[in-house]
Amino acid sequence: MDKICVLGAGSFGTSLAVLLTNKNKYEVVLWTKDNNQYNEMIRTRKNESYLKDIYLPIELSLSNNLKESLINANIILLAVPSQAVRSVASLIKPHISDDQIIVNVAKGLEKGTGYRMSQIIKQELPNNKYVVLSGPSHAEEIASNMPTTIVSSSEDIKIAEYIQDVFSTSTLRVYTNPDVIGVELGGALKNIIAFGAGIADGLGCGDNTKAALMTRGIREIARLGIKMGAKLSTFSGLSGIGDLIVTCTSMHSRNRRAGILIGQGKSLQETLDEIKMVVEGITATQVAYELSKEYGVDMPITREIYGILYNQKDVKECVDNLMLRTRTHELEEVVSEELSL
Amino acid sequence: MDKICVLGAGSFGTSLAVLLTNKNKYEVVLWTKDNNQYNEMIRTRKNESYLKDIYLPIELSLSNNLKESLINANIILLAVPSQAVRSVASLIKPHISDDQIIVNVAKGLEKGTGYRMSQIIKQELPNNKYVVLSGPSHAEEIASNMPTTIVSSSEDIKIAEYIQDVFSTSTLRVYTNPDVIGVELGGALKNIIAFGAGIADGLGCGDNTKAALMTRGIREIARLGIKMGAKLSTFSGLSGIGDLIVTCTSMHSRNRRAGILIGQGKSLQETLDEIKMVVEGITATQVAYELSKEYGVDMPITREIYGILYNQKDVKECVDNLMLRTRTHELEEVVSEELSL
Repeated sequence: MDKICVLGAGSFGTSLAVLLTNKNKYEVVLWTKDNNQYNEMIRTRKNESYLKDIYLPIELSLSNNLKESLINANIILLAVPSQAVRSVASLIKPHISDDQIIVNVAKGLEKGTGYRMSQIIKQELPNNKYVVLSGPSHAEEIASNMPTTIVSSSEDIKIAEYIQDVFSTSTLRVYTNPDVIGVELGGALKNIIAFGAGIADGLGCGDNTKAALMTRGIREIARLGIKMGAKLSTFSGLSGIGDLIVTCTSMHSRNRRAGILIGQGKSLQETLDEIKMVVEGITATQVAYELSKEYGVDMPITREIYGILYNQKDVKECVDNLMLRTRTHELEEVVSEELSL
Repeated sequence: MDKICVLGAGSFGTSLAVLLTNKNKYEVVLWTKDNNQYNEMIRTRKNESYLKDIYLPIELSLSNNLKESLINANIILLAVPSQAVRSVASLIKPHISDDQIIVNVAKGLEKGTGYRMSQIIKQELPNNKYVVLSGPSHAEEIASNMPTTIVSSSEDIKIAEYIQDVFSTSTLRVYTNPDVIGVELGGALKNIIAFGAGIADGLGCGDNTKAALMTRGIREIARLGIKMGAKLSTFSGLSGIGDLIVTCTSMHSRNRRAGILIGQGKSLQETLDEIKMVVEGITATQVAYELSKEYGVDMPITREIYGILYNQKDVKECVDNLMLRTRTHELEEVVSEELSL
């Protein structure tokens, strides 16, 4: 029986651990470094802090012992925050062998370096196969067996297909996509647009404005992505516009909630104090802004949000800037991207 | 001063008439064939039935005289239901000259023929220039000056740009796109997916399911559209995924509301009795289903919705069918589309 070790008992790690356990085909262990959380889960068979309504099946092993939980695991699922991926990868390195597959679900870019998660893993665990899972997938809904679709992406298509088989259930449909760069960039940069959608909500804008932000937002992300080696069509797929839609329309999104507060006139510091958690979109905006200059890509939405966050620009003025820019031929810019593929 | 004649005082025609009047650059007349509506608008300076909170500026002419309202109009804006476009085009034919530009905002395919709106106009008014306006644009929000983006599409790019200039304001940003086929198909076929999103809502599915439906839905529409001569990138633009997002997330959409009733277990007849208006998605499903067979394009979502509407298929079974289909490589299918461009 294949063994799967899930590292990180947040909402997403826990929901996937439950889903895989319920397939009755795998030995699944859910590891957390937090002893209080571990003891509580053992006692209550629930994960109160992150996924409170879901019962943890008795067949799911719980562990706070990293070394033990990794032994003989065919698959190591990294379900930790993006800024913790490097430290966790470095932590597991002494305990794993090259034939263990790393599956990552963290979305983001590393602060400082701007690296994607696969670049970090390649540095820390250069000999292990890597797969990223991404797509429109609230953890709570996966755990409640609501029909969900995600993408399994790897440079090695056979490994992507193996992971597709492992994670597919009657309610989780997994597609494969070899474009790791596009899948990772979509997941990381969508938070900029979710933050912008929140600002629009905070300003009292309507559905028209938000749909425009999403549509034009994924397009400027795609423009950058193509320059960085991604495929255009990935951005119109589940890990691109699909994930963006879910993030921009959900109150689950911290990025959107942070944007709402900014749109209502709060300062960045007041907003961060109120959210009390990492707002990935803020890091992502800075990284994307710098990348857009490095690659010479026009990203008007990112630029305006950068101005709001880092140069105290007035939010209403930013909306006006976006609406009154030089008119363009929507298709022309894209045709040139397609030609550049 | 250019004159614009708006035919049809529904919510969209009225909101555009108000917007154009407020630019103070055009003579605008809003025509309705409904004498009661005409008299009420004259008396109250409001359009109670369709756009009740918006005041009709005194500079906006109101008319129930078709011939008079068309005289010297540079632009004739068709804002009538899609199934009325042919009859209205035929009605105005004796009163117009070849240099008057037809701008259409109706979205749909003609029952029986499956024709797009531009094909109907080409038959009825073969010598007039044609532009279609489409995109994520609830009329109520346009009239309330919420930032909105739309696409001006014509085979004649100069005419598309002229219409872009006429309709652009500080809150309405207009892009141009020469792909009339793609713009019209996106606007017509999105209603199938909105109907499906309603079914998902009615079944109690969550955001993951709806985002999957939208993402995979626009992709199957794009597959068909490409075979019919449209450009792939149009479907990832404002008139494609943009309009789809607005329609699938709004309670304004009759198509979505009809789907919700079906998802809750009502029959098609009960649903139509309750909605009491045209549900374009039902016609669109039939037309698209036939087109998918004619062009040999796989459209799994359309096929399942067709089964629900026309073959009394069980909705839950249809969801299972979609989730358990043969697994595919998400990117592969799209790469082949790009190559076929």
